[in-house]
This record gives sequence, structure tokens and C-alpha cells, in this order.
Amino acid sequence: MRTKAILLIMDGLGDLPNGKKTALQMAKKPNIDRLSAKGGIQGLMSVISLGVAPGSDTAQLQLLGYPPREYYCGRGPLEAFGAGMNLQEGDIAFRANFATMENNKITDRRAGRINTQDAKMLEKEVSMRINDVEIIFKSTTEHRGALILRGKGLSPDVSSMDTHHLGKINPAMPLDGSVEAKKTAEIMNQFTAIVSERLGKSKINDERAEKGLKVANTILLRGAGIYRRVPSFEERFGVEGACVAGGALYKGIGRYIGLDVPLVKGATGTKDTDLKSKGMAAVHELERHDFVFLHVKGTDNFSHDGDLKGKADFIGKVDKELIPILEKSGAVLIITGDHSTSCERKEHTGYEVPILVYHPEARCDGIKKFDEFSAMKGGLGHINGMSIMPFILNSIGKGKIYGS
Amino acid sequence: MRTKAILLIMDGLGDLPNGKKTALQMAKKPNIDRLSAKGGIQGLMSVISLGVAPGSDTAQLQLLGYPPREYYCGRGPLEAFGAGMNLQEGDIAFRANFATMENNKITDRRAGRINTQDAKMLEKEVSMRINDVEIIFKSTTEHRGALILRGKGLSPDVSSMDTHHLGKINPAMPLDGSVEAKKTAEIMNQFTAIVSERLGKSKINDERAEKGLKVANTILLRGAGIYRRVPSFEERFGVEGACVAGGALYKGIGRYIGLDVPLVKGATGTKDTDLKSKGMAAVHELERHDFVFLHVKGTDNFSHDGDLKGKADFIGKVDKELIPILEKSGAVLIITGDHSTSCERKEHTGYEVPILVYHPEARCDGIKKFDEFSAMKGGLGHINGMSIMPFILNSIGKGKIYGS
Repeated sequence: MRTKAILLIMDGLGDLPNGKKTALQMAKKPNIDRLSAKGGIQGLMSVISLGVAPGSDTAQLQLLGYPPREYYCGRGPLEAFGAGMNLQEGDIAFRANFATMENNKITDRRAGRINTQDAKMLEKEVSMRINDVEIIFKSTTEHRGALILRGKGLSPDVSSMDTHHLGKINPAMPLDGSVEAKKTAEIMNQFTAIVSERLGKSKINDERAEKGLKVANTILLRGAGIYRRVPSFEERFGVEGACVAGGALYKGIGRYIGLDVPLVKGATGTKDTDLKSKGMAAVHELERHDFVFLHVKGTDNFSHDGDLKGKADFIGKVDKELIPILEKSGAVLIITGDHSTSCERKEHTGYEVPILVYHPEARCDGIKKFDEFSAMKGGLGHINGMSIMPFILNSIGKGKIYGS
Repeated sequence: MRTKAILLIMDGLGDLPNGKKTALQMAKKPNIDRLSAKGGIQGLMSVISLGVAPGSDTAQLQLLGYPPREYYCGRGPLEAFGAGMNLQEGDIAFRANFATMENNKITDRRAGRINTQDAKMLEKEVSMRINDVEIIFKSTTEHRGALILRGKGLSPDVSSMDTHHLGKINPAMPLDGSVEAKKTAEIMNQFTAIVSERLGKSKINDERAEKGLKVANTILLRGAGIYRRVPSFEERFGVEGACVAGGALYKGIGRYIGLDVPLVKGATGTKDTDLKSKGMAAVHELERHDFVFLHVKGTDNFSHDGDLKGKADFIGKVDKELIPILEKSGAVLIITGDHSTSCERKEHTGYEVPILVYHPEARCDGIKKFDEFSAMKGGLGHINGMSIMPFILNSIGKGKIYGS
């Protein structure tokens, strides 16, 4: 009996044919197709519910058995976890980007995609204390970072300061009538004023200006969320798990729910990630855990760029470089996506995601190719993302009996 | 139009092929397969939800239209009903086993599988009154029995005294901070002390000891539950039903929800049950009722023993001895299980259960064999256990219109 499982999420895997073929249909993927024929069962999955396009954060939470309606804390805390910050109950966390501001107007939302080294040097200018609120910032890659407000009487019900457009900076506003939201918005606005002044004076920015680079002279806050401890994955499911991912958000989700999140060399969270390295890390984690969540982002990146061929080639690369490593582990393999992303629309859609479970000792449907149309006829039928964790625990003989 | 229905539950019916065949695939079952081809429609059913392995109690409740989340009262009251006891609102009931204790340690959890006659003779030593609490015991078969605590201020939130292992006896503990749980645990512990002393002095046990048999000198309590009246089957669904079963638990479930539960000669609730007798009883009950729940336990027993061939042969016996009797009744036949039990794992699993509905006048899929893999392609698709009662009522033209 197989006693371990790997859940491989190819972000944004499913697609629409748009009169031609989907990336999964185009891809050369002899290994995945062989697994399907030899010991697979396929189906189509609505991660949240039929027709609903999820974000990557809510989708992964649902697949990991943490329904977002109950457990979604907003993007901020997940980003902060992803940055490796230590959160405390009640912290208000944000995604925080370095940006370029001229005459109170944002002229570059990413400070010219400032290099990670410069950003790291500016990091210390950003953390500060305002009245009784401690403000902690951590820069991650390029312009990206996360920021925490720690103090009493704060609220996540505040507006985003990042309009996602250039132009006048948005002051933070309370989103309800509470004193907590009012206080939080005021702190955010005071912080923005102080940090902009400090960054404006920094030597790093002087040097960048001299080199003709965009200055990183403000911070844009968005995705406010409050951190509340959730039951750990082990508490919830009785098995220990690990998360192998490159992107900060996915590592953050892993840490948020108490999965072990190893640092994986070459895992970039983008198209150029080292798939072999991730595969080996997943198999290595399987030695100490019963379950590994393995996240690959490239499929979604190519979809958002509208690059159908790139998406198909990336699936082919996963098939060639990653699948053989996973197959050798002897684990139950669940190969799917977190949502469908359309290369034509360049955005997430609410179409179901194809799912393939490789488990030759269990019930198989013998379907020879894996794609959206084969999956339509699969033995799993149409399933919901919330069933994935019970399904996996059952597959490896670690589910709990309901009743007696 | 068919106006009556029989729901035949073969306990633990579904299985995994484990590289070979499932019991359903192996079984010789010309009658079932003929019904399928002639007028059947198949599907796969998640009784609770996909991937969740139910206990037999929760599973039957769900199938009978009493979702366990709302109606599960714990094992104790169902066992007490099964033993034919009269429960009153607020009774705390337990599964209660005769056991052998030496120096305060359990050395046999079943008192050497004491024969039913000896157990019956010891029965009167067990019932007693402690303070304001009446304690009522009824022995059923061999070491098995049920016990009721009747009194004010009691709670089912107490720990099991049966660890399912040999060794030191577990004192009952309150599972919350309530005075009711504390009182109940104290009564349980006092009861155990008194009953052990009484049984230790009994003549029956002296005789057993002389014969070299294990003495039945204590009672182990587990599965505490509180009885609250639930709407009867007739109140809930507008039709009268009967329950034909051998096992005490299943008869108990029938009585709990107000089904008629006839005594069926030769229905043992184990592998050696008299299938013809059960079939005739079911058809007889159909004269006075629109619906019969017919439970057969053998399939589950063979699965827990890891006896794949035994399971297949038992299915063959059901096909040969039971199905023709049911077919002749002219009722809609629903043939399924309450959960899948794996012969390899020897335990309940969360894999779907195959279901076959024989109703030649309704929509059929013409599939010629009934097993887990045919059911995957069946016309019913993937259904949930909570849909069975509405489906049955609809099949016999006795559903209620929702709306107007």
C-alpha cells in the first residue's frame, strides 16, 4: 500500500481550446500520459465552485483543506510569512512594494524593478515606530516586500494605497466606522509620509539617481490582512507535510498552515525555475513527511503572458524533468492545477481544472492521455477542491473514520 | 408504476482492485448482472463525502435520510435500541461488554467470548441504582450488551473505559468542565467498582472458573451517547418503512428512527446469516410498508478479515439466495453498500461505493455487469448518500413537491 502522496500543482494549468488546442493537448508529455494509462484516474475539479475563478491564494488554501471562507486572512499575512517574517496574533500585514514617487505622484510602481541588493540596503530605513505601533518591513526580491503593523487596536479594514495605476498616491482610508480602522489608516498615512522622506534622503537612492536608475523613494501598501493562528496541518489532518515552492506567496501559505517549507536551490517561482531541484527536494521531504505540496508557477506565468506555446513547452519540461523523479518516489501522485488560466484572456477563469491521480493499486480508468477533454470522461467525475485532502488521506490510508 | 422499494445494503461492499480484481468483479452474480442489463442504472456514491470513510452507524443514518451531523447520537443509544431497550429522552447509553479483570487489569476484553446463556444469567447482577441514577443493563449476544444511565444532570461527554487494549482499566473521566460530565464519570466509576465486586462473587463465574473458562467479572463501557427523540421515518418522509437486519447496531438504527424492526429467524448479522429468510422477511414487510431497509453484514466481515475470496463468494450467495426473492417482489431495488471496506487494508475506506438501481420502467444505462468499474461509467454518475432517500421516494412516486 502506498503511504505517501505528492500534490503537484501546476499553477493555472487548465485552459480553453479557443478553436485550436489547449496547452495540455499540445504539450509533449509522454511520462504523464504513461502514468495515466498505467495507473491513473482522471476528473475535472472546481476548486472553489463551478464557474468561480479563484486567486492563487484562496485556491491553494482550499486545496490544502483550509476553506478560504473560514481561513483566508488576506494576502498580507501570507506574503509576510512568505518573506520569512515571524507573525504574532493580531498583526496587520501588507504586501509592500518599493515605488518611485515624483511630486506626490507614482511614476513607477516597482521603482524600476530595483535590484534585490539595493532594496535590501534600503530595508532598514523602512522599519520604525509610530506612537504605540511597531512597523516591521522585510524586502524580498526586487521591489517586493512585506510589512507588519504590530500594536493594539488595529484593523485590516483599510483601503489599499496601491491603485495598480500610475498617478496620485492613494491615502489609506478606513473601510468601516471603527476606531481601529481609523487608527490603522492614520498610521499607514503617517508611515508613508515618514518613509518617503527618509528614503528620499538615502545615499542608495542618490547613487541610483546618478546612475540614471529610478529611485525607490516610497512604499506602496496593499492586501491588508490580520493574522490569526489557524490549526496546523498536522493538528487538522494528523499527518505532517512539507511545501516545496519558489514563489513567496506559496511558501507563505505553507508556513501559515504549519507545513515545513524547505529552502530549495534554484526554485525561483517563475518560468526559469529548476524543476529537477524541486523534484528532488519534494522526494527528499517525503522521507520525513507523508505529504508534500509541490507548487510550480511557470504554467500560470506563460498563461498571463498569453504565450500558449510557452505554456505547452513548460508542461513538456515538467513532464521530462520533474515527473520521472516523482514517479520513482513510489508515492501517490496527484497532478492538477489551482485554477484554469486562459492564454487568450490572460487571466484566471472559473473553468474546471483537469486532475490526474496516479495510484495503480486503486481504481483506475485507463485513459491514455491527460488533458481537459480526456478528464471530462474520467472515472473521478466532477469533484470539488475541498475533497482533495480527504481524498489524499484516504489514498494513503490515513483518513479518520467518521463515526464508529 | 412500481410503488415500493427495497434498499439492500451489503455492508462494506466496494473495494480496491490492488492490481487484481475486486470482490464484486470476481463474484459470480448472474442475477444482479441480469437485473443491471435488463433494467438497471449504475453509479458511484460517496456516502458522507468524497474521500471520507464512515463508520457503519453514521453511514446508515446518512443513507436513511438522517444526516449524522444532525442526528448522530453516538453509538450507545443505537446499541441500546438494538438490544431492544426502551430509551427515554435524556438517557445516557453505552455499549457494555463483559470482560475479565485480574488485579485491576483487563486480561480479556470479551470474557473469553462468554456464551450468551451465561451472560444472560449474569445480567441481573449488573442493573442497580446509585444515588438518584438508575442503571439498566441488557445482555445481547455473547459478551455484548448495552447499558443505560437514567437520571437528572447526566452528560455523554465522558471518556471511554474501554481502551481496546489489555492492561489497566481506564477510569471514566469528564471530557468537559461541566458538573454533569463530572457526575456521570463518578457514577460510571462507582458502578464499575460495585459491579466488579458483585460479579466476582457470582456463582456463574465460580462455575466458569472451575471449567477453566474466563470469568466475566467486570463490564467495560464505551460509546457514550445521549438519546434525544428524532422525527420518525414516517414523519420525515411520509411513508412507513421496515428494517430487516441481523446485527444489533442496525436494528438499533431502525428503531431509533422509527422503522418497524421484525425479528427475523436466522438473521445473525454475521457471515452465516440466513439470506433466504431475510429476503422473505423483507418481501413480507413490503406488504405493509412502502420501503424496506435490508442490511447484510457478511461482506464487511469478510473484508475486515482480509478474505477477498470469502467476500466474493458471499456476494455470490446474496446473488443466488436473496436477489431472486427481492426481484419477484416487484419493488424498485437499490443495491449498494454503506462504505467501501478494503480486503487489503482490512478497514473502511473513503472510496465511493458502487450503486445499482433496478427499475426497468425508469431511465436505465444498460450496463451488463455490476462492479466498481462499470459503475464508474454508469448513468447515475457520482452521487452522495444524502440523495438516496429523495431518490427512492421519487422512484416510487412518493416524494413531496418542493414549492408549488
